[in-house]
Amino acid sequence: MSRIKGYKDECYIRGNVPMTKREIRILTIALLEVKDNDIVVDIGAGTGGLTMEAAYATPKGKVYAVETKPEAIQLIKENARQFGCDHIQLIEGRAPEALKNIETPVDKVIIGGTGGKMEDIFVWSHQAMVTGGRIVANFVTLENAAEAMAFMKKYFIEAELIQVAISRGDAIGGLTLLRAANPIFIITGKKG
Amino acid sequence: MSRIKGYKDECYIRGNVPMTKREIRILTIALLEVKDNDIVVDIGAGTGGLTMEAAYATPKGKVYAVETKPEAIQLIKENARQFGCDHIQLIEGRAPEALKNIETPVDKVIIGGTGGKMEDIFVWSHQAMVTGGRIVANFVTLENAAEAMAFMKKYFIEAELIQVAISRGDAIGGLTLLRAANPIFIITGKKG
Amino acid sequence: MSRIKGYKDECYIRGNVPMTKREIRILTIALLEVKDNDIVVDIGAGTGGLTMEAAYATPKGKVYAVETKPEAIQLIKENARQFGCDHIQLIEGRAPEALKNIETPVDKVIIGGTGGKMEDIFVWSHQAMVTGGRIVANFVTLENAAEAMAFMKKYFIEAELIQVAISRGDAIGGLTLLRAANPIFIITGKKG
Amino acid sequence: MSRIKGYKDECYIRGNVPMTKREIRILTIALLEVKDNDIVVDIGAGTGGLTMEAAYATPKGKVYAVETKPEAIQLIKENARQFGCDHIQLIEGRAPEALKNIETPVDKVIIGGTGGKMEDIFVWSHQAMVTGGRIVANFVTLENAAEAMAFMKKYFIEAELIQVAISRGDAIGGLTLLRAANPIFIITGKKG
Repeated sequence: MSRIKGYKDECYIRGNVPMTKREIRILTIALLEVKDNDIVVDIGAGTGGLTMEAAYATPKGKVYAVETKPEAIQLIKENARQFGCDHIQLIEGRAPEALKNIETPVDKVIIGGTGGKMEDIFVWSHQAMVTGGRIVANFVTLENAAEAMAFMKKYFIEAELIQVAISRGDAIGGLTLLRAANPIFIITGKKG
Repeated sequence: MSRIKGYKDECYIRGNVPMTKREIRILTIALLEVKDNDIVVDIGAGTGGLTMEAAYATPKGKVYAVETKPEAIQLIKENARQFGCDHIQLIEGRAPEALKNIETPVDKVIIGGTGGKMEDIFVWSHQAMVTGGRIVANFVTLENAAEAMAFMKKYFIEAELIQVAISRGDAIGGLTLLRAANPIFIITGKKG
Repeated sequence: MSRIKGYKDECYIRGNVPMTKREIRILTIALLEVKDNDIVVDIGAGTGGLTMEAAYATPKGKVYAVETKPEAIQLIKENARQFGCDHIQLIEGRAPEALKNIETPVDKVIIGGTGGKMEDIFVWSHQAMVTGGRIVANFVTLENAAEAMAFMKKYFIEAELIQVAISRGDAIGGLTLLRAANPIFIITGKKG
Repeated sequence: MSRIKGYKDECYIRGNVPMTKREIRILTIALLEVKDNDIVVDIGAGTGGLTMEAAYATPKGKVYAVETKPEAIQLIKENARQFGCDHIQLIEGRAPEALKNIETPVDKVIIGGTGGKMEDIFVWSHQAMVTGGRIVANFVTLENAAEAMAFMKKYFIEAELIQVAISRGDAIGGLTLLRAANPIFIITGKKG
């Protein structure tokens, strides 16, 4: 069971950092099966799109947002403030090094970016996670999706992948133009 | 806020009646913004895929499942029993006639099938719904999507449409074949 | 049999007028089954993307490009010049009125835009075309696609529709980001 | 310039061997830029879907169809007979070993299957091909697409990838249901 808010894209303070789209945030939190008191780690948090949804889903838990880009860190802070989330802890730095600042074990891991250290991040996620914990990784590139799927099968059980392509109706002169968002690979697994 | 269970497809007792896929169920309930004590009407409930998710999301509310096909009605009953949902009321019959057996007002309406009476169903939904209530309609055909979008704009506010195309990774000899599900149009609106 | 050049998008002189993407141009000409000596009418020619491919496919035929927007007309002229196509005749004006300037019968019709006069354009296309002639209509909006499919079935035989969603790999730091183009509805028919 | 026939799926004699869909065949031959007198090699020819289109496109050239599965070989023979193609040479065996039976140089290579020997096949393709020759590889799995893209960039120039998702309208009670085909990765390159 996950408590899903489904914040709209326009609710967020956004910069030039690309943000996961609403439907992908909803699916990510639902597939992560986030519970009220879960400890969630959001690695490569970006603007904090998923962080805020994860925070909403964990009123009795905690969310670590790991991010290294200064502009993104600033946006996470601003979004946390406007959404009134005081159980988000920002971990400034690059994974996997920065991850040592997280108190383990954790229940759930979101991977939104890997900065080229994917296997290290998978290894850390597996070690840091409780048995039965879940992990969801989102990718926009073919190579990262293929590589992540390999690590998901190596370190976790029940590895699954979906590719989600969403087009949003855009009202043009009374008609509905289908405007495509870039397809996203969502890869999920569980600690056995 | 919606409490989303995200039941897997294989959790359901299924017949030959096509069933909304898991990701579409998750998005539908999230976009409907189902609350704990909502009264939800699921018109054209089919196998009950969305009914069960709606029931999970409304522990203090109620779900009406409207369906006319005997095979589908039987599956809804069996699924309600296995999921332990005792706040689902089955309305056997065809919309819009059968809808008069529903106690109004209601909070949320799901349209999964219209049997050719789409405008009547939209009119009923609008009349039966509280101000601020939400409606989500799912379609697999182009014509129904276009028609529903027109009625959504006529009777409701904040009409939005997305088309969702999901491919699921299928493990074939250690590789991940992308197996496409048919694209779904999800149309949402709100009673102004 | 169609002779397909497959001009790349960047070969065209382009303005702010949106242009059909390369893959859609290829599919459109192939599904239109353009022959060497065909007379082709491109209604709503825009930048001339399809006009140039049709011109390539008809070395012994002729292509009428019907367009009303001055900026688009200018681009068609410039593209015809740079591609060295001297068997394109530009019909400046709005369909269906402007279509009376076309010498009939014709073999093939492309519909790229309808300006709200869709049935008139279908009626003209049917009347102007030889028996066994083919028609292909491309749309980006749900409503136009649904309406065109209805007219295709009313006036032509073998009406078929496909929706084509193409993502193009974009090289980002050695990785391949999938960048989605908006999905296109391609509707085809034949004069019975 | 490619001469494209666009044979329909139902024109082929088919078995249980999966066949590339019509739109993918059209795009593949167009992106391969097959010319009248080209020598084309179709590696992993399967049912011969692409082989027949390549044969149509090369009235003064030749097509080698490389395939190892007996059932598929039989279907290629039957399809070549019914399409009246006498310039197809069947190479029975597994790539890359079987490729030594092909007279080089060749102009174009199609890769439809690799049987786990992908790099060897790319190396052979590069060596066997004239400068300026083109190669198109089609894949249904994520891993093969990612791996092929890496080899395409390693051995060829102008490496490009598209993912093509096509839904075909299926007439259901006067409505048009969108039925999705599995998405295909089409990767192209050129010998520099």
